[in-house]
Amino acid sequence: MTEHPFATKDFARRMERAVAQATEAGLAGVLVTPGPDLVYFTGYRPTAITERVTMLVLTADREPAMIVPMLERPDAERSVAALSMTDWADGTDPYAVTARLLDPRGRYAVSDSAWAMHLLGLQRELPEAGYVSMTTALPMLRAVKDAEEVARLAAAGAAADAAYERIIGVRFAGRREREIGADLAGLLREHGHSQVDFTIVGSGPNGANPHHEMDERLVRDGDMVVLDFGGLLDGYGSDTTRTVHVGEPLPEEREVFEIVREAQQTAFEAVRPGVPCQEIDRVARRVIREAGHGEHFIHRTGHGIGVTTHEPPYLVEGETLPLVPGMCFSIEPGIYLPGRFGVRIEDIVTVTADGGRRLNNTSHDLHIVA
Amino acid sequence: MTEHPFATKDFARRMERAVAQATEAGLAGVLVTPGPDLVYFTGYRPTAITERVTMLVLTADREPAMIVPMLERPDAERSVAALSMTDWADGTDPYAVTARLLDPRGRYAVSDSAWAMHLLGLQRELPEAGYVSMTTALPMLRAVKDAEEVARLAAAGAAADAAYERIIGVRFAGRREREIGADLAGLLREHGHSQVDFTIVGSGPNGANPHHEMDERLVRDGDMVVLDFGGLLDGYGSDTTRTVHVGEPLPEEREVFEIVREAQQTAFEAVRPGVPCQEIDRVARRVIREAGHGEHFIHRTGHGIGVTTHEPPYLVEGETLPLVPGMCFSIEPGIYLPGRFGVRIEDIVTVTADGGRRLNNTSHDLHIVA
Repeated sequence: MTEHPFATKDFARRMERAVAQATEAGLAGVLVTPGPDLVYFTGYRPTAITERVTMLVLTADREPAMIVPMLERPDAERSVAALSMTDWADGTDPYAVTARLLDPRGRYAVSDSAWAMHLLGLQRELPEAGYVSMTTALPMLRAVKDAEEVARLAAAGAAADAAYERIIGVRFAGRREREIGADLAGLLREHGHSQVDFTIVGSGPNGANPHHEMDERLVRDGDMVVLDFGGLLDGYGSDTTRTVHVGEPLPEEREVFEIVREAQQTAFEAVRPGVPCQEIDRVARRVIREAGHGEHFIHRTGHGIGVTTHEPPYLVEGETLPLVPGMCFSIEPGIYLPGRFGVRIEDIVTVTADGGRRLNNTSHDLHIVA
Repeated sequence: MTEHPFATKDFARRMERAVAQATEAGLAGVLVTPGPDLVYFTGYRPTAITERVTMLVLTADREPAMIVPMLERPDAERSVAALSMTDWADGTDPYAVTARLLDPRGRYAVSDSAWAMHLLGLQRELPEAGYVSMTTALPMLRAVKDAEEVARLAAAGAAADAAYERIIGVRFAGRREREIGADLAGLLREHGHSQVDFTIVGSGPNGANPHHEMDERLVRDGDMVVLDFGGLLDGYGSDTTRTVHVGEPLPEEREVFEIVREAQQTAFEAVRPGVPCQEIDRVARRVIREAGHGEHFIHRTGHGIGVTTHEPPYLVEGETLPLVPGMCFSIEPGIYLPGRFGVRIEDIVTVTADGGRRLNNTSHDLHIVA
């Protein structure tokens, strides 16, 4: 599938928004390093994220400027035409070059995934300056999507849904988790994904480990199977989970499934602007706890999604950030019975003016596979 | 090819060495995060490097301990049996958990590629503690390889050599750089690489950009072609460059080639224990400068290699670290004539008691391909 790059003016608007939010938060600027933040602001992905410093400096008092290794300047210029660039050569000090663009007493937001080595280099060069992580300082910046971003997430979600509709038609019993995962990856690509980030197939007891990916286990008749899959389509992420059953489920399996389904539905219905993120987590957790499985729901209820499949906002106890229209995140409660089976249902949801809208729309019924 | 994991006692020895070097450097300990450092110390690679904190704490006063997200504990325990683990759940503060293992006034080495967000979290939790990057604090730690590591690097080098001997037999003229790169990647895998990290094919003017990877350009008769390729074999890296010519070279092409060959050879001959890293860079640069191409050698002379293909020590002006037996690095001078062609020759070299030993051993003659 063809990628549709954003236009220079889209990136310029994002950079302006970052500076405005930084100023409002009392910061002197924003320091962006390779990874999702740099993709978000410029579309630029250096070949590798290395010990060589690349840093986009966004401040109110001058045009955006990017520090790049001299070697990588041709690539950077090809990718990001409209940006003032300063290069540094091997054997010179990139922190000194960066520091010349900064206020020695300013306070800066720094990309979460910037290398500690680079932050320490700046701290050494400008010991009186202050630094705070991007997520802590500007939690709304990437978390609130514009209409075009929501449209891309919706397209990624629809493609993941189409892959799911196909995978439930394949044979499960007698095949290895890894084979089914490979089928899923192929289907995601067939439906337009440029990159597959994960295809979790957790059958029987493997489904009780929410972090299990897939292995050589042969799926059997009678297994619950957690399918959690996603990747990137046109630069934006998909991330969906459905739990299916091979053959007829036992009454207890169906009961656990229904609790998770109700938790997911109730949490979804709680989505509306102004509600704190943690409230969505509490709502899902309450349903599961009241059904007697509180200790079996061992992760947060959700995470944001955008140019990566895991980003703010996090739907977790302690996150008091209010929901805002345009936020996009997973709602994915689960119940994990060690040694037995697991159930998880996950949709990507976007906050609208008066509630939430699902970007995954396949059925929440317990689907029986062969 | 089967991977041969290191034994628990190998990892234990590395951890002890880290603590000893840290103590000698006046540090309270070493904080290791996912990525090459954690692989080096434990073999453990979490599925993804994320906003969730995983941190190995190495200090003199207690056994090694690892902080892990509760969700990832089963994976971590399966991978690293002999390590005390402390987990933290979503919604709790991982920095507080980590801080309990640290001296509030201690000074710690931190993995270069640790997320800035995590370093800032620790700095907020323990504002009186000090932090310094691993490379700055303990430059010898991963840079000096033991005999088993050198043997693995030699095996990776020999496999890359075998791939090179095969690639020079394929047709170049009339094929796209990307096709030749795909051939090279296939050959590296065929010769045992579990992972291919890069296959640079820089033909004609593309060779003049040392950071060029490969594109749709059709290679032509009369082109110089830079081939720079590497990856991982049994957990250790290969990284080799040879420059070949399609058909008979012009006298000037041959002349530039010979300058690079002499620079590489002279730099190699300068390798012996005690020589500062920057001296190897200076030696290579002098040969090229005296031949009139100083401004066309636009990168450092080399970089270390081990569990990654880019790591300390760096052979660059300003790096005064002395060479020590067991260090392994590239020597890769080049000349780049913008818009025309480039030449680079690169071998991995290990420092021995009385000089250097090449881990790449294919000919440095200018090979003519078809």
